[in-house]
Amino acid sequence: MDLYQALYTTRAMRRVKPDPVPDDVIARLMDAAVRAPSGGNTQKWRFLFVTDAAKKSQLQKLYSAGLAELNATQYKSVMDLIRDGDVLDPLVIQAKKTNASAMWLAENLHKVPVLLFAWGKPNGESSLFPSLWSLQLAANAEGLGTSLTTLLFKKHTQEVLDILGAPPVGEWVPMAMITIGYPTGKWGVAKRQPPHEVAFSNTWGNPVSWSVEQPMWP
Amino acid sequence: MDLYQALYTTRAMRRVKPDPVPDDVIARLMDAAVRAPSGGNTQKWRFLFVTDAAKKSQLQKLYSAGLAELNATQYKSVMDLIRDGDVLDPLVIQAKKTNASAMWLAENLHKVPVLLFAWGKPNGESSLFPSLWSLQLAANAEGLGTSLTTLLFKKHTQEVLDILGAPPVGEWVPMAMITIGYPTGKWGVAKRQPPHEVAFSNTWGNPVSWSVEQPMWP
Repeated sequence: MDLYQALYTTRAMRRVKPDPVPDDVIARLMDAAVRAPSGGNTQKWRFLFVTDAAKKSQLQKLYSAGLAELNATQYKSVMDLIRDGDVLDPLVIQAKKTNASAMWLAENLHKVPVLLFAWGKPNGESSLFPSLWSLQLAANAEGLGTSLTTLLFKKHTQEVLDILGAPPVGEWVPMAMITIGYPTGKWGVAKRQPPHEVAFSNTWGNPVSWSVEQPMWP
Repeated sequence: MDLYQALYTTRAMRRVKPDPVPDDVIARLMDAAVRAPSGGNTQKWRFLFVTDAAKKSQLQKLYSAGLAELNATQYKSVMDLIRDGDVLDPLVIQAKKTNASAMWLAENLHKVPVLLFAWGKPNGESSLFPSLWSLQLAANAEGLGTSLTTLLFKKHTQEVLDILGAPPVGEWVPMAMITIGYPTGKWGVAKRQPPHEVAFSNTWGNPVSWSVEQPMWP
């Protein structure tokens, strides 16, 4: 797969089939992931792949509970928008789509074939997340859909760590879960706010001298 | 460029030439960057490109001071290893190489043509760092070398924000700087600890059923 195709079409792909992912594919994803740079090339990361049905079922219940809690608090304004907003407003339409996809995941997390949990060192986000994004890009090239979520580490961290037999937060910090499976949908180019609208030149607020009127790929 | 080539060969490339980077190239990097997924597709990121010589000179002084401070504290054990370690020990050799590269950057930061600063929302690391890694991968395809560092936001955050005219840490959190320029060296496949040594199956500590004896690319 061409790099730009991967960069433009890899996006949160939550709805996947229950079909298992072969070991050799997982090995390829992981080998690509660990090529990413890390601070001082220290490679302080750990990855845990969950395929066990009983564990996935326990995790699904926590994920579903966590999403309900967030929908009632941090995401309340979005949920209000979905319920009360103009059905023709593009923002409302987008919020509904994202929410439906998140709800699908909450209800079906145990049916996702592989759940990958990832740890870094304290303040090691800049070292871990590039490797995870490499894994997601490689997954696209392998025909796999992925989505990254931090939800389980917002509300139910210790319960999740207990299920995983993982050490308490300290030396290692759990930072994300990535769902992995063969997608039911297709990849398109993601719509985004044009980059010149979120970029400055030399001083905060000062516009850049270039602009992007349309996605530059394909 | 093939995706796997980019994933295997994009690494910290600090030594670059002073040649400027054309606007259309920066636009392509940024357009690729904003295609990355972000939590709830909220795209809460800001990017500031510094090319101004006076600002880069001020930033170089802070970067150099910050590195010296870290070398005397957080990185002291590595610096001791470099000074006292066995000159034939691969770990010592690697530490020396990384340190020499970091020192080059500290002494020459003002000569790097483009310094990119990036902000996310509080706890928004998982949304910002994939986009930055996309930018670094695209830069490789464009023949550009990049390196990501958080150093300026470890020791001299407010002074840096003042130089950039950026708001104090709060609504927006500065998370990284990326250096961008045409490299003096070449890209090779990075050596890494094999991925099966940092991966577990179903329970922390439980080995995975696959292994990677050699890099799977090229």
